[in-house]
Amino acid sequence: MTAATNHQWRLAHRPEGMIKTSDFNLVAEPVPELADGQVLIRNIYLSLDPAMRGWLIDRPSYVPPVQIGEIMRGLAVGMVESSRHPKFEKGDTVQGLFGWQEYLVSNGEGVTKLPSSPLPLSANLGLFGLAGMTSYFGLLDVGQPKEGETLVVSGAAGSVGSLVGQIGKIKGMRAVGIAGTDEKCDWLVDGLGFDAAINYKNGDLRGQLKAACPNGVDVYFENVGGEILDVVLSVMNSFGRVVVCGLISQYNATDKVPGPYNFAMVISKRLRIQGFIAPDYGPRVKEMITDFSTWYMDGKLKYRVDVVHGLDAAPTAINKLFDGSNQGKLIVQVSEV
Amino acid sequence: MTAATNHQWRLAHRPEGMIKTSDFNLVAEPVPELADGQVLIRNIYLSLDPAMRGWLIDRPSYVPPVQIGEIMRGLAVGMVESSRHPKFEKGDTVQGLFGWQEYLVSNGEGVTKLPSSPLPLSANLGLFGLAGMTSYFGLLDVGQPKEGETLVVSGAAGSVGSLVGQIGKIKGMRAVGIAGTDEKCDWLVDGLGFDAAINYKNGDLRGQLKAACPNGVDVYFENVGGEILDVVLSVMNSFGRVVVCGLISQYNATDKVPGPYNFAMVISKRLRIQGFIAPDYGPRVKEMITDFSTWYMDGKLKYRVDVVHGLDAAPTAINKLFDGSNQGKLIVQVSEV
Repeated sequence: MTAATNHQWRLAHRPEGMIKTSDFNLVAEPVPELADGQVLIRNIYLSLDPAMRGWLIDRPSYVPPVQIGEIMRGLAVGMVESSRHPKFEKGDTVQGLFGWQEYLVSNGEGVTKLPSSPLPLSANLGLFGLAGMTSYFGLLDVGQPKEGETLVVSGAAGSVGSLVGQIGKIKGMRAVGIAGTDEKCDWLVDGLGFDAAINYKNGDLRGQLKAACPNGVDVYFENVGGEILDVVLSVMNSFGRVVVCGLISQYNATDKVPGPYNFAMVISKRLRIQGFIAPDYGPRVKEMITDFSTWYMDGKLKYRVDVVHGLDAAPTAINKLFDGSNQGKLIVQVSEV
Repeated sequence: MTAATNHQWRLAHRPEGMIKTSDFNLVAEPVPELADGQVLIRNIYLSLDPAMRGWLIDRPSYVPPVQIGEIMRGLAVGMVESSRHPKFEKGDTVQGLFGWQEYLVSNGEGVTKLPSSPLPLSANLGLFGLAGMTSYFGLLDVGQPKEGETLVVSGAAGSVGSLVGQIGKIKGMRAVGIAGTDEKCDWLVDGLGFDAAINYKNGDLRGQLKAACPNGVDVYFENVGGEILDVVLSVMNSFGRVVVCGLISQYNATDKVPGPYNFAMVISKRLRIQGFIAPDYGPRVKEMITDFSTWYMDGKLKYRVDVVHGLDAAPTAINKLFDGSNQGKLIVQVSEV
């Protein structure tokens, strides 16, 4: 293995606005020899997630920012190539924050062995990964949905939104998605069983929402922010819940972004607006795996991956999350399964 | 009684910005004869509350707006002058939405008899009224405070804020108030036992807050909105709760008001922002009366009333809520006890 080269994307400087390839340096390092207690992991799939844009900003948050010169942080699925660690052996499939690189030498900390599964390996990012955790605990734990209520989800064709709507349906809700193309909307309704889907680019979002939600909106699962949040607030029912998962419309903003102009409705409608992050639910992950496995086998839960090939493509591919061009969970394939 | 005249403030047109006396007409009508089943109430104290500004705006809310030509809606305490109603007799003290007028003839609906009490009659507005309900259920039910946590309350010298901080102390919290004069701040600390009070007009609110809250902020009881909300959000702890009681800084705005610029912190800090209105807690009012009575008798709970004399003064007096000049619960005394 000493002859192998490990290509890595290291942060060159902090991006302004959208991420550019030149914000990173592509570095080649030799893969080091394993010491006792270490394991060599070959990355297969990298997960690209909106939250990663926040990790590049130098400010206090739930995780420290990626530092200049560091390998870009990212969730990945990989395979053990060789092991001098008692808990891992060659051929194990593993998951963790392995970063934007081809290989990782680890002492095993933060490396999770994946159970064998009839699903493809990419399902660990597309269904059971962060997107799964986010949709499952965000809707069920934060949103506290009740049968017969109306759910609206923005970014509905994304990896999280598409699962949220399906979970809502499984729980007996009316599920309405907001997305940015007619093709995505068709997929939500015809492919995933949403009750309705709205293309916000077709205009009159409020009118479209009122038509799609004749009983108002009880739970809003927010991935986008900005004007869409304001419009949904205006059609929410009293005692509604706004699950704030993401605000992707503002992650690349270079100026201060105002909060919702309809914020005062929080009082008159007695709304609960609550943010969360999926890693907080780590100790409860088995609840999701159990339910998702059942629902998937019963044909009630579908997912889609959008695979970009090659580590080289990572810094450009991530912008698909922000320009709306990805369809399903965005993944970079670094090496063959 | 037929000779008596009932002066009433009726809405002439909807105010723009701050309320002006000319937005109302002072009308004199004879007090009608009582029919069977009716009761004549003489208003003694009118409650002036920030929410009343919202009742003057023609938009859907938790109560319908006051219509042009209608008597201004308002909570009041009064005395039964004469009764042909089986449940009331002359001399009973009563409370209800009796409106901005001297007398009310009622069929008894919405008229609550007040229990005899060692406290002055004005305590029913200053302590046990809407301010009490708002502070008690807002902090305890919505805020879910825990012993040892830090509470910040804005509008802290107001009728609600001053009670909120004291309830926080009783529950073992560190209580920090934000107010707009040094005199108010002194009263909060020396008179009411707040741990600290901040005059936001002295500048560097963030620095003052960080100094007053060395362990960050766990519960923020919001009466004000605007810049103060943004600054408090920036010093909140993870899993903090923002109890949105009022946004008085924007009630007189004539343009659209942006929500908090730090709204994205809802996610990174996993905040819960929740609005409420006191009337929803009507069925639980006895919990408050029991606790408040005990705490008041034990000397743990103090309140202050700011009494303006004469029904004539009502439309100008209400602006004391918005220019920060009231100290304690703002009340108009319409007639002698």
